[in-house]
This record gives sequence, C-alpha cells and structure tokens, in this order.
Amino acid sequence: MALRSIGIPAGGGVLSVEELRTRLRQVGEERYHHRHPFHLMMHAGELSQGQLQAWALNRYYYQSRIPIKDAIILSRSDDPEFRRAWSKRVLDHDGDTTREGGIERWIRLAEATGLDRERVVSCQEVLPSVRYAVDAYLELVRNRTLLEAVASSLTELFSRDLITLRMDRLRQHYPWLSGGLDYFEARLQQAPEDARFALQWVSEHAVTRAEQESAINALTAKCDILWAQLDAIYFAYVQPGWPPPGAFRIEES
Amino acid sequence: MALRSIGIPAGGGVLSVEELRTRLRQVGEERYHHRHPFHLMMHAGELSQGQLQAWALNRYYYQSRIPIKDAIILSRSDDPEFRRAWSKRVLDHDGDTTREGGIERWIRLAEATGLDRERVVSCQEVLPSVRYAVDAYLELVRNRTLLEAVASSLTELFSRDLITLRMDRLRQHYPWLSGGLDYFEARLQQAPEDARFALQWVSEHAVTRAEQESAINALTAKCDILWAQLDAIYFAYVQPGWPPPGAFRIEES
Repeated sequence: MALRSIGIPAGGGVLSVEELRTRLRQVGEERYHHRHPFHLMMHAGELSQGQLQAWALNRYYYQSRIPIKDAIILSRSDDPEFRRAWSKRVLDHDGDTTREGGIERWIRLAEATGLDRERVVSCQEVLPSVRYAVDAYLELVRNRTLLEAVASSLTELFSRDLITLRMDRLRQHYPWLSGGLDYFEARLQQAPEDARFALQWVSEHAVTRAEQESAINALTAKCDILWAQLDAIYFAYVQPGWPPPGAFRIEES
Repeated sequence: MALRSIGIPAGGGVLSVEELRTRLRQVGEERYHHRHPFHLMMHAGELSQGQLQAWALNRYYYQSRIPIKDAIILSRSDDPEFRRAWSKRVLDHDGDTTREGGIERWIRLAEATGLDRERVVSCQEVLPSVRYAVDAYLELVRNRTLLEAVASSLTELFSRDLITLRMDRLRQHYPWLSGGLDYFEARLQQAPEDARFALQWVSEHAVTRAEQESAINALTAKCDILWAQLDAIYFAYVQPGWPPPGAFRIEES
C-alpha cells in the first residue's frame, strides 16, 4: 500500500518521548473512529437492529484477520522477548483450551443481533470495501517496517474510552444486545496492556525523526483503515445508499 | 485477498466456450460499473465541476496502477508469445518516445476539470477507500492464478459501450471538458483489441469447470473493485457524506 507521505516539518529535530506521544495522541483525537457518524448514531440509539447486524457481520471480517495480522508481526521479529510479549495477542483472539478467544466472543455478539453463526463466519456477504480496507491492514504489517507495523496497533491507545462508552450505550439503547458484550468486556483489560507495551516499544525503536514520523504516519494509516470500514457500512446501510451486488442486505421488517 | 467463493452448481460439467462467454457477459451486465449511480449522474449531466474533479483525481490513482498491474501479469507468464501480446498494454499506458500514453492523457483530462497536474500526480488527496480497492486489484493479479489475473482484465469487454456513451454525454453536458477526452478516444480502439486477446486466452486456458468458475469469479471480483471506487467517490462527494480527513475536498464556489 502506498501510504500518503507526510513530510518532516522544516527544522524538525528528533522529538522527545513526550513529544512523540503527544503527536500520536493527536492523531487519535483527530482521526480515530470514535468520531465517525456511524458510531455517533450507535451511541445515540439511532441504529436499527438490521444496521447493527450489518455492523457486526462486516466487522467480523476485521476481527477474523486480527490474529493473522499479529502472526505476521510475530513472524517479522527476531527478538524472542518481543515475540513472547506479542504472541499473547494471537491467543487473546483465537483462545486456547483454557479460555475463550475474542473471535468467538464477536460471533456471540453477532448472534445477539439475530444473525446465524454460519452466515457470519462464511464472510460471504461482507462489503467489498470493508474487505479491501482490512486487507490493506495486512499488507501494511507485511510490507512496511516492523516499527510501522507495531505503531499501527497503537489505535488501542484510544479504544478503552470508546469501548467504555459503547458498552454503556449499547446496554441503554439496545438492551436485547446485553448478552453479547463479552468481547468488549475482555478488550477493556487486554487493549490497554497491549497498548502500553507497543507504545513503549515504539518510543524506544523510533530513534530518528524520520522513524518517528513513519510511526505517526502508520498510526494515521491505521485510523484511515478503521474509518473506511465505517464509511462503507454507513454508505450501504444508513444513507439511502446501496449495498453492492452480493453483499449483506438488511431484511425488510 | 480472500475472494468470495462461488460454488460450482450441482451437476455442473465443463461449459462450452459459448456458455463460458455468456456467463462472463452476464457478470458484466449485472455488476460492471456502467450501472453505478455516479456514472448515471455523470451521463445525465448532474455532476458539478467539483464532483468531476473528485472523480478525475481519484481515478488517476487507478490509472497510475494499471501499467504496474500489467507488468505483474507480464512477470508471471513464462510464454514469450503471451508476453509479446501483453506488453503492448504497458506501453499503451506509459507511452514511449513515439506516442503518448494513457496516463498522460488522463492527467490532461484532470487538468481539463481545472486541477493542477502536480496535485493529481502526487495522489496525496486520493480517498483511502479508492486506494484500498485499487491495491486489492494489484494483490489479485499478484497472488491469484495467472488465469484469474487475465480474467480480471475482461471488464474491457464492456468498456467500449460505456466509453462511447460517456464521450457523447461529456461533450453534451460538460462542453468545457471536450478538450480532455483523448484518453477515451484512444481506449475505444485499445480496449476491444485487448479484450479479444484476453477472452481468447481465458477460453483456451480455463479447461476444467473449476477453472472456468475461477475465471468468472475473478471477473466478478474486478467488477467489485471498479464499483467500490465509485461508491467511495459518491459517498464522499455526492451524498451529504464526508471525505475522510486529508482527502480531496471540493472547493466552495
């Protein structure tokens, strides 16, 4: 993926760790999908059950690719300590014999919206644009530097506030969904742990100003990827838009 | 890219060449972007100059990737005869010392809409979703079979009718654009030549029913890729939608 290049401001020297963290947080404030109108509608209770189904079904494709993304990052590091820390993420999503993983929990959320498990897991009705955006994330972690791959995960810095708000509002506006929120409950603890490690690692490994800017740029690219998924969902299912041929359609009620 | 899998109908044997071609044409009738509402508006004269700018600027990213796509396909064939036929495509877009290429012609179209060349060529303001869709096309021709890569080019079977109509309507509704239509003029001849070769090649190389279905599936995937680009443009610039942060914005007039 050709990332939009962001030039280094004239006269810019190396940022202090605090300056770098401020810049990363700025990206989140401006571009993280907590600002997306689809989320604003969700939190205001303005989505129909069908629209929540469309969201759960499409975002399942993203969820299903997260452990693949993390396995690619794992495969790119030659540092056992890094890999020990990072492999937790694959387990968090895939689960193991002792604990349930995030993908299974997301399926239960989709079931709580009224969808059949098979329909969700098949990914047959995922919007092509959602697929392209998610696949662009895999391409980013595969083909850019390891620093950029790790930095792209830093959206987790911003997820706790969004998830906290979302759980509250989903329970309030869509009480019939309340049984399906285990995914978010687990992420409330996992995401900040993961973000802490990744932020520390990025702070240590982005040494030159060019590396720092590449990390900021990668986080921007990841925000674009999350945002584009909601654009596609909003366009197909909220606006008087149209899901493309073959994609999930909301049933007439 | 994980293509949506399309099962082989029960009892389905190998299709005759005529049956295969009929199936491929059906894909075009149902899914080619001649049906897209953005094109319908364009042909009805309902787009503003800013909207035509957004289209020309975003589609430039697609145009700029076409010779890369064709070079990937070239690189995957070990048949000199195939490569001799296919290399024409790279030249058609890049040009050489004796003739102008399609990319240069597209830039002139974008200039005719009122955009600066540098702004178009930089690709800085391209919608992320357009980028993801175009990059998915490169991924398709890189990672799927050569048969699927070639079959994905068969949208050119349908382009002549669309281009003929488009040139007529652009001249009628947007006469100030008339000086920028050389790109389409050239494609009127190039596309049918290319499509003839590719259709013949696909007909000969899709031998089993599974191969035939994979070719149909690849053409479907390509139609999705074209359609998704217009969805993104429509959503950002026609609906009361929003271009994502950093993307091209239509100037207030």
